[in-house]
Amino acid sequence: MDQVYAYIDAHLPKYIQILKDLCRQPSVSAEQSGLTEMAHLVAQTMQSLGIESRIMPSDGAPVVYGQMAGRSNRTVLLYNHYDVQPVDPLSEWQSPPFEPTERDGRLYARGVHDDKGDLLVRLAAVAALKATGEELPLNIKFLVEGEEEIDGAAIYTFIRDHRDLLASDICFSEGGSLDVKGRPGVYLGVKGMLYVELEARGPAVDAHSSYAPVLPNPAWSLNWALSSLKDRDGKILLPGFYDDVKPWSTADRVALAAIPADIENAMREETQLPAFLDGVQGVEFLERLYGEPTCTICGFHSGYGGPGVKTVLPAVATAKVDFRLVPDQRPEDILQKLRSHLDANGFSHVEIRALADIGLPARTPVDHPLVQTVIDITREYYQTEPTVIPMMAGGVVLEPFITALGAPALFAGIRPDGANIHAPNEYIELSTLAPAIKFTAHLLQQLGQR
Amino acid sequence: MDQVYAYIDAHLPKYIQILKDLCRQPSVSAEQSGLTEMAHLVAQTMQSLGIESRIMPSDGAPVVYGQMAGRSNRTVLLYNHYDVQPVDPLSEWQSPPFEPTERDGRLYARGVHDDKGDLLVRLAAVAALKATGEELPLNIKFLVEGEEEIDGAAIYTFIRDHRDLLASDICFSEGGSLDVKGRPGVYLGVKGMLYVELEARGPAVDAHSSYAPVLPNPAWSLNWALSSLKDRDGKILLPGFYDDVKPWSTADRVALAAIPADIENAMREETQLPAFLDGVQGVEFLERLYGEPTCTICGFHSGYGGPGVKTVLPAVATAKVDFRLVPDQRPEDILQKLRSHLDANGFSHVEIRALADIGLPARTPVDHPLVQTVIDITREYYQTEPTVIPMMAGGVVLEPFITALGAPALFAGIRPDGANIHAPNEYIELSTLAPAIKFTAHLLQQLGQR
Repeated sequence: MDQVYAYIDAHLPKYIQILKDLCRQPSVSAEQSGLTEMAHLVAQTMQSLGIESRIMPSDGAPVVYGQMAGRSNRTVLLYNHYDVQPVDPLSEWQSPPFEPTERDGRLYARGVHDDKGDLLVRLAAVAALKATGEELPLNIKFLVEGEEEIDGAAIYTFIRDHRDLLASDICFSEGGSLDVKGRPGVYLGVKGMLYVELEARGPAVDAHSSYAPVLPNPAWSLNWALSSLKDRDGKILLPGFYDDVKPWSTADRVALAAIPADIENAMREETQLPAFLDGVQGVEFLERLYGEPTCTICGFHSGYGGPGVKTVLPAVATAKVDFRLVPDQRPEDILQKLRSHLDANGFSHVEIRALADIGLPARTPVDHPLVQTVIDITREYYQTEPTVIPMMAGGVVLEPFITALGAPALFAGIRPDGANIHAPNEYIELSTLAPAIKFTAHLLQQLGQR
Repeated sequence: MDQVYAYIDAHLPKYIQILKDLCRQPSVSAEQSGLTEMAHLVAQTMQSLGIESRIMPSDGAPVVYGQMAGRSNRTVLLYNHYDVQPVDPLSEWQSPPFEPTERDGRLYARGVHDDKGDLLVRLAAVAALKATGEELPLNIKFLVEGEEEIDGAAIYTFIRDHRDLLASDICFSEGGSLDVKGRPGVYLGVKGMLYVELEARGPAVDAHSSYAPVLPNPAWSLNWALSSLKDRDGKILLPGFYDDVKPWSTADRVALAAIPADIENAMREETQLPAFLDGVQGVEFLERLYGEPTCTICGFHSGYGGPGVKTVLPAVATAKVDFRLVPDQRPEDILQKLRSHLDANGFSHVEIRALADIGLPARTPVDHPLVQTVIDITREYYQTEPTVIPMMAGGVVLEPFITALGAPALFAGIRPDGANIHAPNEYIELSTLAPAIKFTAHLLQQLGQR
């Protein structure tokens, strides 16, 4: 691989230039701006690196598909996204978000980390493998979409509709990183999500609070409705909510027990809480965080919220509630159970609007042979034990690969170090770009051999 | 009285001029603007009408005291306020709020109705009685404060501290009006109020909602805490909450039964609700509205409230809750019961901030002889049965007269017709100004004789 590594080092300025070009093109999915232009730029970039590419329509933003054949029968699918988060607040950026700027060894731009940097790492690794050998060690497929940052549903449909084209032995979702102690992470599952807005209505307009003895108050209705969803011990009270929850496997529990305490410590520092719910810590903390389905009030708004006193009986109350689901719960089933529960408890007047109900939970078995191969390759390369997380607390695009393609799927690999994802002054450390490309090339090369 | 009425008609242009002068001086208590100037203007206006006046300090804005002796021993206290509501939104005013403007028989200005118009009516009535007789028929005391619109506590202390100066046989609070059918209203009681802000805190800053399995969520805590305060039948669950509630007297019930259905109908129209709580109507509606203490969520705010999805676990949740109290409940006692209840139910982390706790409930007995005299005078003058309401649903300054001065106190008398109190384009109908002054003069004259 020394030849490959030397090639990567020699071509690093070119890769940085490509990354800058990618970042210079705005592609904010929330604002539907620059997506088509961005898809074309990604497809051109692939072609310039010798990767066959085409732009394919979807129900949403165009999808870029790329492929390069190799000498083994094994096929790896690499998923990334070309859209980025909005730049607000613009005034906090030290250099314009779409003018990639080097400062103090860092490259600043919106998307330079999430996810154009990840994409560049993978494109560069494949290009270097191809340039230094006659054939790639395995078949590569690229899938790059444009609505990840708005949780777009189109990619789910696209994958289901293009099973044959996308068929693979293993899929890597968008990223992966080293933790603060240099340990690589391998994430094997993802929770699903149902996100609803609940609304109760009372008088046609805000009324004087002195009318309270005779007027229904939607803030009370919604409060009571929410209280009926979850008890103070955290148990979710929708009948049948836990019916489809699949318990951890023994292999999962072994993986959980091996996870270092850094995650717990980082969360303690970030939240500045003296204790977590029920005082959980250690493996119990991890089992809860990764394994428990949730019902969370993300927002509750009704009536007056300014300073001081306003004696008002609100006309309307709304709450945003997110349900994080674990295998094998399904969003549409939970939505139905929510409606039935509210109806059965006298809350049929509480309206439910499903704002996101496409995220399905899915888990790749930790003992899948190819997963173990990735773990082995990673361990050998970094000379340290990877942190294997059977289930992410949050959500990335992982489920359709597992369910529709039937392939093991991971959130793994290595991205350059960086920070301020989704925030002003997003950046990567330029010194970590070449190492990320080298590991990716090594991983792909080994996956073609073992 | 014909001479008095003729005098009022002849001097109407002068009264309108005085009212315009009063309205030209801004006096927004919420912004602490113009209050001292306004107090001086009120005192000067009294003097110009032959009413002895002085400006007296209080814990808040200066108080204007006025007096004029009469030939009987009976003393009437007239309470008004010289402060006004803020003018926002200024852009909706068709003429500047502090430039009194006549349009289509109306006089537009902030405060022209609430409460400078009421004050002018009383000043004019007293001046007319004085100008047309040798002596006033009874002793008059004026009490005009400057913090009514911000529920200032200073006037309560002021009245308690000046019992001798303010001693009276009967007190009239700021206003009173004819209903849509021309029936005068006589209001005899006022609910008290405790207004609190409740706050629960979770992580130091908003966290990602995927952390929900292990992080305390203040939106849930506050939701559960609120649900513990009131059950779905409307019963308030603070232990001892109803202990001090004094039931309606027989005379109260008789008065309630005589109230016309207009109030219920107007509220039905305003709220556009198909039914009130528990389907109450008729006398049951009135007994609830006027007699029931309440616990009302006036506002609940936590987390994300914008469009679409934001997966956030809020750092903080706050609610504004108002308790309307009936005799003999006391705000400080209810506040203590609230704290004890939250502590006893595991909500000691929920902070309580009392934003208003000075409003005490109080009721003047409907069968008090002087009240009956006022009702008789009013009935005879208008040739119709006054609507006697033993208790207002909302609050005005009434309790300190009843409690500290030991006098019957009413929200009665007649103000000019008008609208848009607390809103842009506040106005009075100029044609109703002279009739309001005439009735007030008649009422005072009769109260001196009977």
